[in-house]
Amino acid sequence: MRCQVAIVGAGPAGLVLGHMLHLQGIDSIIVERRTRDYVEQRVRAGVLEQPSVDLLTDLGLGERLHDRALVHNGFYIRFDRETHHLNLNSRSGRHSYVYGQAEVVHDLIEARISAGQPLIFGADEVSVTGIDTDRPVVTFSDGQQTHRIDADFVAGCDGSQGICRTLPPAGALARFVRSYPVAWLGILAHTAPVTAEGMYCAHPDGLSVHSMRGPRITRQYLQVPAHTELQDWPDERIWQELLRRSESDDHPPLETGEIFDRSIALLRSEVTAPMQYGSLFLLGDAAHIVPPTGAKGLNLALSDACVLSHALGAYYCTGNSEFLDAYSATALPRVWQAQNFSAKLTSVLHRLSDDPMEYELRRAQLRRWASSDAEQDALGEVYFGLPFPTPWRAETRT
Amino acid sequence: MRCQVAIVGAGPAGLVLGHMLHLQGIDSIIVERRTRDYVEQRVRAGVLEQPSVDLLTDLGLGERLHDRALVHNGFYIRFDRETHHLNLNSRSGRHSYVYGQAEVVHDLIEARISAGQPLIFGADEVSVTGIDTDRPVVTFSDGQQTHRIDADFVAGCDGSQGICRTLPPAGALARFVRSYPVAWLGILAHTAPVTAEGMYCAHPDGLSVHSMRGPRITRQYLQVPAHTELQDWPDERIWQELLRRSESDDHPPLETGEIFDRSIALLRSEVTAPMQYGSLFLLGDAAHIVPPTGAKGLNLALSDACVLSHALGAYYCTGNSEFLDAYSATALPRVWQAQNFSAKLTSVLHRLSDDPMEYELRRAQLRRWASSDAEQDALGEVYFGLPFPTPWRAETRT
Repeated sequence: MRCQVAIVGAGPAGLVLGHMLHLQGIDSIIVERRTRDYVEQRVRAGVLEQPSVDLLTDLGLGERLHDRALVHNGFYIRFDRETHHLNLNSRSGRHSYVYGQAEVVHDLIEARISAGQPLIFGADEVSVTGIDTDRPVVTFSDGQQTHRIDADFVAGCDGSQGICRTLPPAGALARFVRSYPVAWLGILAHTAPVTAEGMYCAHPDGLSVHSMRGPRITRQYLQVPAHTELQDWPDERIWQELLRRSESDDHPPLETGEIFDRSIALLRSEVTAPMQYGSLFLLGDAAHIVPPTGAKGLNLALSDACVLSHALGAYYCTGNSEFLDAYSATALPRVWQAQNFSAKLTSVLHRLSDDPMEYELRRAQLRRWASSDAEQDALGEVYFGLPFPTPWRAETRT
Repeated sequence: MRCQVAIVGAGPAGLVLGHMLHLQGIDSIIVERRTRDYVEQRVRAGVLEQPSVDLLTDLGLGERLHDRALVHNGFYIRFDRETHHLNLNSRSGRHSYVYGQAEVVHDLIEARISAGQPLIFGADEVSVTGIDTDRPVVTFSDGQQTHRIDADFVAGCDGSQGICRTLPPAGALARFVRSYPVAWLGILAHTAPVTAEGMYCAHPDGLSVHSMRGPRITRQYLQVPAHTELQDWPDERIWQELLRRSESDDHPPLETGEIFDRSIALLRSEVTAPMQYGSLFLLGDAAHIVPPTGAKGLNLALSDACVLSHALGAYYCTGNSEFLDAYSATALPRVWQAQNFSAKLTSVLHRLSDDPMEYELRRAQLRRWASSDAEQDALGEVYFGLPFPTPWRAETRT
């Protein structure tokens, strides 16, 4: 097989890139290790920024999204048993949209198939060679025989556990890493949300998060130590702790009910820089990981895809590789803004130390957020999403 | 001697408290270990917040201040060799005022003397007893004989090295402490300021600060390791490092010249809570220390004095001790806001770790400050000073 861009991974980054390339007349083949059912059902992020929604809408993928998404103006924080709504869009009029990653992926797969563009699920033994040449090759097996894709470029969209991030020679790309000593134990439950928009409870013993996926589906999290085992957390214990951390003097306790999904995820920040090597470009989780606080991961994947598709469009249109060369420099400043935002939210909302001064400083910051319109505006600018970078705005580059 | 309030220490906290008590007809005696010359000449803080200036103006102490102070709209930050002005008052119209602590102290001493109120300099062997009774006693020696002051209350305004903070029994007050592994080497020099308002340079090797005390007097600082000795820093080395850290692509280098004062101060945060015990009240540095970043120390001393003088006024007017009992709960939230602000500025502006991710996150925050009006508004709210708390606004208490 031959295509201009071989895309490894059918998550949000790979699918949006493929769709944007198709709209520009650039042909791509998407190769995904998992089945369609798997990628459409895995539970991942659930909050879209305004620029992500604007992009999907512009791409003609907004119909189901606007029909189903819950539109939020901010979020709640609770501390000292008091609940505060942070109205983050009083000046900007922008929003966040509750719409699960599985839904985004579903819409994108439908669009890809309608367009008749190649999308290969269940690809085994995917490998990539020749990224230091202008003729990289992706091979994979369908279980019976091996296939070969010859491409101009490879887009690595296969996440933090994928092969693409391991391809450049050791030392070629810098890796920035921060680990947190905590994890999130997450559940999906058939219960009604406790507040009209998501809520972070900064309890002295640790964070609990109470968000939603629909009117009768909640997504809730507990801060737990890094090495927590799911088996130690039967449903009863999960509810008990969610109830305890979310106790307040101004709201009834949260509803408990059937838990139908549970998982544990470590909190980690990671950035690979530059996000490109030879004819390989890294996007989304393959290039960077953010902690879940602030819900930036999925949105960064879309913003990377947007930058790369513009750069590839310019390259195939004019033969000029300037924007491709600048892919990383264009995408990274927004990545670092998201990292900084996520790190700030993480450190203010979690109990990360036993130091009592740390706790008082966190409370002071929570009070600022709760009481200052300017703080809420500033939070909102990043929470609802900084503008997607464009390669032709060179001043946005690092 | 007998008075209603014995004030230990003639720094800004003690002098403002004494002045405000006098205006309410409450008599006080101020006892100061140092000479008048010493307290009027020691080099300390130099930036007043808007509420501090409003207070001093209301108290009839604004004439010389408004005549001499430099009025600023924000400050500059410099990083990646680029200079950015943070205009922190575009919405609020509030300011900061460059007016040295020595000037404030001078004005307050003049007022105290004009009012014929007792102010004793050079008091030796100051001691305080009976703070767990309603008849505390302050004694001191004038070098020849010992004097005794019987009071209703003692105001501990003698700073972080003073005796007052050591009076309550061990464990009676909680102490929150954070030390930073760095110090500020500070100079006063006869040179012209490099920018129209103060500037923080977040150089990869560490912070330099370029502020001013007048059109031809600069106050500049270098971040140095905690255990730095002044003798290792001859003038030439100081200028070399100030020049290097402030290098830019958009401004000429700073002017060098005669250095006429130099000192080293460790960066530390400390809070004592509650700030009262029996008939003793702690104010200013006796109750809390902030790192110099953000220039909050002097302003907190004035805000404490304001809270206590209102509470004492209410007590002597009505006999009701409610507001006195609430002194600490009233003053502390603002103290914690200042601590949080100083800690945030300190961590973003200094190099406190060798972690390259830390550096990138700091750069991301600096970019946010430089590019977002909302961030600048939010910074300005605290930089120009949150409102002074008043005891009768119970909702402001912790």
